[in-house]
Amino acid sequence: MPFDDQLRPDTSALYTDLYQLTMLQAYWREDMDEPAVFDLFVRRLKDRHYLVACGLEQALEFLETLSFSEAALDYLATQDPFEPAFLDWLADFEFTGDVYAVPEGTPVFPDEPLVEVVAPIGEAQLAETFLLNQITFQTTIASKASRIVEAAQLDGEDRIVADFGMRRTHGTDAAVKGARAAYVAGIDATSNVAAGQAYDLPVTGTMAHSYVEAHDSEVEAFRAFSALYPETILLVDTYDTLDGVRKVIDLMNETGDEVQVRGIRLDSGDLAELARSSRTLLDEAGLADVMIFASGGLDEHTIADLLDRGAPIDGFGVGTRMGTSADQPALDTAYKLSGYAGTPRMKLAPEKSNLPGRKQVVRQYEDGTAVRDVIATEDEQTNGAPLLERVMADGKRTEAGAPRPLSAIREHAAARLDELPSRLRAPTANPEDYDVVLSDALEKRVADTRDALAETMAAEAA
Amino acid sequence: MPFDDQLRPDTSALYTDLYQLTMLQAYWREDMDEPAVFDLFVRRLKDRHYLVACGLEQALEFLETLSFSEAALDYLATQDPFEPAFLDWLADFEFTGDVYAVPEGTPVFPDEPLVEVVAPIGEAQLAETFLLNQITFQTTIASKASRIVEAAQLDGEDRIVADFGMRRTHGTDAAVKGARAAYVAGIDATSNVAAGQAYDLPVTGTMAHSYVEAHDSEVEAFRAFSALYPETILLVDTYDTLDGVRKVIDLMNETGDEVQVRGIRLDSGDLAELARSSRTLLDEAGLADVMIFASGGLDEHTIADLLDRGAPIDGFGVGTRMGTSADQPALDTAYKLSGYAGTPRMKLAPEKSNLPGRKQVVRQYEDGTAVRDVIATEDEQTNGAPLLERVMADGKRTEAGAPRPLSAIREHAAARLDELPSRLRAPTANPEDYDVVLSDALEKRVADTRDALAETMAAEAA
Repeated sequence: MPFDDQLRPDTSALYTDLYQLTMLQAYWREDMDEPAVFDLFVRRLKDRHYLVACGLEQALEFLETLSFSEAALDYLATQDPFEPAFLDWLADFEFTGDVYAVPEGTPVFPDEPLVEVVAPIGEAQLAETFLLNQITFQTTIASKASRIVEAAQLDGEDRIVADFGMRRTHGTDAAVKGARAAYVAGIDATSNVAAGQAYDLPVTGTMAHSYVEAHDSEVEAFRAFSALYPETILLVDTYDTLDGVRKVIDLMNETGDEVQVRGIRLDSGDLAELARSSRTLLDEAGLADVMIFASGGLDEHTIADLLDRGAPIDGFGVGTRMGTSADQPALDTAYKLSGYAGTPRMKLAPEKSNLPGRKQVVRQYEDGTAVRDVIATEDEQTNGAPLLERVMADGKRTEAGAPRPLSAIREHAAARLDELPSRLRAPTANPEDYDVVLSDALEKRVADTRDALAETMAAEAA
Repeated sequence: MPFDDQLRPDTSALYTDLYQLTMLQAYWREDMDEPAVFDLFVRRLKDRHYLVACGLEQALEFLETLSFSEAALDYLATQDPFEPAFLDWLADFEFTGDVYAVPEGTPVFPDEPLVEVVAPIGEAQLAETFLLNQITFQTTIASKASRIVEAAQLDGEDRIVADFGMRRTHGTDAAVKGARAAYVAGIDATSNVAAGQAYDLPVTGTMAHSYVEAHDSEVEAFRAFSALYPETILLVDTYDTLDGVRKVIDLMNETGDEVQVRGIRLDSGDLAELARSSRTLLDEAGLADVMIFASGGLDEHTIADLLDRGAPIDGFGVGTRMGTSADQPALDTAYKLSGYAGTPRMKLAPEKSNLPGRKQVVRQYEDGTAVRDVIATEDEQTNGAPLLERVMADGKRTEAGAPRPLSAIREHAAARLDELPSRLRAPTANPEDYDVVLSDALEKRVADTRDALAETMAAEAA
C-alpha cells in the first residue's frame, strides 16, 4: 500500500512515543487518574524575537478523535510491555480533559504557555507527542515566515511573498502544514497544490528552466507559454538573464495586446543588480507594469539585503529556508507537568525548570502598542488582555475552540503582530525590547513549590 | 475531518507545485511528448562528506499509483489556468516511463544521479516535486543518522542509538519517514510507535520526568515502574542525578532478583562527568550490568566529545538534532532536464549547470575499499561496480525495483558504508579523501552540448 504509513484516524493514536503508552499502562495499574496540568511552552529563543503560535487546530482534531482502533490495538498486542487487560481498557479510551490555549496566530514569547492541558494524568501524558509535534513545527514555520514577510515589507511597501518550499520540506505533512503556517503568518500564496486544496489557499507558480530547455529556443518557449497563459510570469535566467528580458520585451512588442505578461522571474546571479538592469530595460520599453519576481535561496536576511541595496523587486518566491526554517529548524519546546492532584509540580534542574500550576498570560498595552506580558496564576486580576482561552471542556470543543477559517486566523495574526513594537519585528531586533514578567502571585507559587519539594526530598533522605 | 490534509491515494497527484501542472498542460497543448531525461542529484555538500541515498521506495509508490481522482480533478477545475479538455485528458493520466536509481542505503556523492527518470516530458516533469520532497528529506535524515551512528561506534564499540525525535520533527510524515531513514542508516530503534507499526521497526522508550514528579517521591516512582517493567530503564535526573542513581541501587538491593533494571538514563547536566560517577556508584554496588543511557541535545559532535572524554555510556537517545538534521536541514538537491527528444540538454549558469544525457555511476575499489566514483555515459565500459539500476520500465517496477524489506536495505547500507575509507566517516572528515570524476566520454558530451547550445544562441541572436 503506497501511503499506508500516513496519519489516519484508524492508527492516529499510535502517533506517540512508546513511553507515553508504557506510562499510561503504569498509571492505569496504579489507579492514578487525578487531574494533571501540562503546559506546552518554549524555553528559550535563538535568532527569533517573537513567535507566532500555530498548530492548535490539528492538536484539537487529534484530541477530539483520539481512540484506539482494532488495528492499533492489534499492533500494540505484538509489543512486549502491554498486557491484555490494559489493551481492553484502551479500546474505550478517549480524551475527556479541558484545554486552554492561545489562539492560533497570536505572537507569544518564551515561558508563556501556548497550551495547557488539564486531564486525568494518563490522558494528558498520551497527548504530549502529537501536540508537541504539530505545535512545534507549525509555530516554527509561522515564526520564520513572519520574519520573511516583515523583511519584505520593512519599508512599508506591500510586496508579494510566495511559498515555493514543497520540494525540500521534510515530507508531505511538513509541506501542507508548513504552507498553512506560513499563510497564517502573512504570505500571499503557495506553489503547493495539495495545501491549496486542503486549506483553500491561493496557489501560484511560474515556469521551470526545464520548460525553456526543452524548447528549441528560449523565445519559442516564451511564445508558447504566454500564448496559453497571457498573464504569466516568465523565467528569464536559463541562459543569460538580460538577454532573456530582451526576449520578453520583443515578444510583448510582437504580440501587442494579446499577451500581457504579468512579470519576469530572476532565479540566479546578483539579484539586486539584475533586478535594476531588468527594470531599466522594461521601463525603457514602456513596460513599467511588468513586475519583477525573485527567487533562489531567499530568507529574511537576503531579502532585507536586496531591499537595502534598492533592488526594484515586487515579489519573492521563498523556498527551502522558509519551509525548513533552515537557521532554526526546531524550537526549544517543552510539555511539562505543572500540577497533579491539586498540587503544583515542577522540575528543579535550573536549565529545565517550569512554572507550577495553571496560569494566564496577560498582554499589557501603552497607546495601542503591546509593551509587556505578565505570566500570572490562572485566576488573579491583572490589567491587560488575557491570551489563554478555554478551547476544550470535558473532551469537547468550546465555542472558543471551534474551527476557524484560515483567513480569520491570518487576520488575527496580522492585527496582533501590528500591535508589537515595530523594532521587535525587524530581522535584527533586540529581544530586550519586550518584557515578559511573572506576577507576584506566580512568583510566590514558584517559591512555595520549590520549598515544598525541598522538604519532601529532605524527608526522603532522612 | 481531522486528517483530511494528509497524503492519500485519492489526492496524491496534487502533491506537486502548481507550475508542474501548468507546464504539463502546455506540453499537452504543444503536443510535446518526446522522452525526456531528468536527473535527481545533490549539487554541493556542506558539513557532510558522503550521503546515504534514501526515499526511493516512496518515490516508486508514488509513480506507480499516480493518477487524478475525481476529487483531484474537481479541485483543479476551480483553478483558473486549467481548461476542461486538459482535465479530461488528466483523468486517464498515468506514469509510463522508465526509472534508473541507486539502491536505497547506498552511499553517494555530489553530482551523482540518485535517480534518472526517462518518460514523456510532461510525466517526468510532474514527478519532480514529490520525488524531490521524499528523496531529499529521507536522504538528509539517513545521512545525518549515519554520522551519528558512526560517532557512537568510532572506537569500535557497539553502542545503541535510538531515535527520540518524533516530538520535534516537521510533522507526522517526517516523524515516520525520518525513523525509516535513520533505521536504514543504522540506528537500533525508535520511540515512534507509528513508525514501528508502519515499518516493523524495533520500538523503545524509558520514562518521563512527569512520571517521577506525579509520584509522592522519586523512589516511589522507581518502585512502581520497575515492578511493572522489571527490565526497564529508569530516568534518574529529575531532582538530583547521583541521588537518583543511589535510589536505583537501593531499590535493586531491596527487591533482589525481582527487579533487574536494564539501565539508567541521564538527560541533563555534564553527561560525561555524571556517567563516570554513576558508573562508579553502580560498579561499587555490584551492578556492572546496569547500562548507562544518555539523551538531551545529542548529535554526532556531542557524542564524539563525550566518548573522547571517556564517558562510560552504553547507548544514546538522539532527538531533534537527528530528526530535523538540525545543522543542515536540507540538501542542495536538484531535478534537472538532461535530455529531450534524444538530444542532451543542460543549463549554462556556472553555479547551476548539470551533466547532460543519461549516465551511469561506477564505483572503483582498491583492496576492498572504495576509492573513486566515475560518472560515465550510460553505456560505456568502465571498470568497477555500476550503482544505477533500472527499477521501473514502462511505468511498472522491474525486479530490481521490487519493494525490499527494510532490514535488507539496512544491511545493504551497512555493507556499502563499510567499504568507504574509514576516515571519510568520521564527523571531521576531509571530503578530499574521496574522488568523484567524469569519464572522458562524459567530459566530451558536456563540451559538445555546451558548443551546440552556444551555436543555437548565436543563431537566435543573429
